[in-house]
Amino acid sequence: MSRIAVLLYPEMTALDAIGPYETLALLPGSEVKLVARDPGPISTDNGPLELIAAEPLSAVPDPDVVVVPGGAGTRAEMERSETIDWLRGAHQGTTWTTSVCTGALLLGAAGILEGLEATTHWMFRDWLPRFGATPVPDRVVESGKVITAAGVSSGIDMALLLVERLAGPQVSQAIQLGIEYDPQPPHDAGSPEKAPTEVVEGVRSLMAESARVPG
Amino acid sequence: MSRIAVLLYPEMTALDAIGPYETLALLPGSEVKLVARDPGPISTDNGPLELIAAEPLSAVPDPDVVVVPGGAGTRAEMERSETIDWLRGAHQGTTWTTSVCTGALLLGAAGILEGLEATTHWMFRDWLPRFGATPVPDRVVESGKVITAAGVSSGIDMALLLVERLAGPQVSQAIQLGIEYDPQPPHDAGSPEKAPTEVVEGVRSLMAESARVPG
Repeated sequence: MSRIAVLLYPEMTALDAIGPYETLALLPGSEVKLVARDPGPISTDNGPLELIAAEPLSAVPDPDVVVVPGGAGTRAEMERSETIDWLRGAHQGTTWTTSVCTGALLLGAAGILEGLEATTHWMFRDWLPRFGATPVPDRVVESGKVITAAGVSSGIDMALLLVERLAGPQVSQAIQLGIEYDPQPPHDAGSPEKAPTEVVEGVRSLMAESARVPG
Repeated sequence: MSRIAVLLYPEMTALDAIGPYETLALLPGSEVKLVARDPGPISTDNGPLELIAAEPLSAVPDPDVVVVPGGAGTRAEMERSETIDWLRGAHQGTTWTTSVCTGALLLGAAGILEGLEATTHWMFRDWLPRFGATPVPDRVVESGKVITAAGVSSGIDMALLLVERLAGPQVSQAIQLGIEYDPQPPHDAGSPEKAPTEVVEGVRSLMAESARVPG
């Protein structure tokens, strides 16, 4: 039985959490819980969607796996000692501690990335050294028992790797097939190395202006 | 302004809706609403997650874009005339009517797929002819103003195509980069044509036994 805790917090990015959630919930023998400082409806950072967190942090002090999403609310959450203390404590006993997107900054604030290689959303890679981490521009970075993933949608790839570590390649393939993850985006523009320069610069300015920058 | 309605209903698959939601919410000038027969917390089919639908169907009678997710609750929802009537009515005035996974069966029940090419989750392709549709084993199928997508995760690919139709390729690329959709699953096993035969057969038996089969 893998007891998996997905952290929710205000102004998070929904897909950061739901990609891994949907993947990990299909793992045979897993029990996924959605935890938050304040259980109940949790706002997200891109519109009207709210997710419900069923459990307080205190109800899940020792999960086997932690998944931390990112989002515009990351900066505020980094200052919430209840969340950071829970993360630090949970990490002591986890088999795997993971993040998606700027969720890595919460791991960093909890001291979890000290001395590790890590990734995050491409716009925030240069935040990682302040937590003692070495940024790696990969989609999924495994460093000891910590797995960090790049921006938003990368949580699906991260979770499939995590399933492989927990249950082997056949189970990972079966879940991939179950969620029909055979990606065929209309363009090959999903990373700053691949997108046209003017698109990269456009997104950089837009995000720097918006509340999505947790800095 | 694109007024986008994402339909939620009990025992839906969360990622079917949240992939397109996250993508479309980033479209400049879009207004995304989450609608349901019964607004409030909506259960999902893989675990404890609930999403909140803020609006009743009657509040959004004439959206420009409709997104219909699938899930284990599809069979029950096909019998709910309030939902099917709303879909049929909304479709009259949409610019685009779309589905993800077995959401296509709801479009079918509303008569929307009659005479069209369409796709759905790979396990349910043979359901499409009963709605007058021709199954196409592609990830995203555009037929007139109806776009259907394959299983669960394909909603992200579908939404990026939809953004391209609504706002052009640069905006689609910018959103793809914003959500860092540069997929790198650990295996190439996301479709029945690509996964190892024993994995396909395993998933087929598991899903046939479970409540995930809407038949």
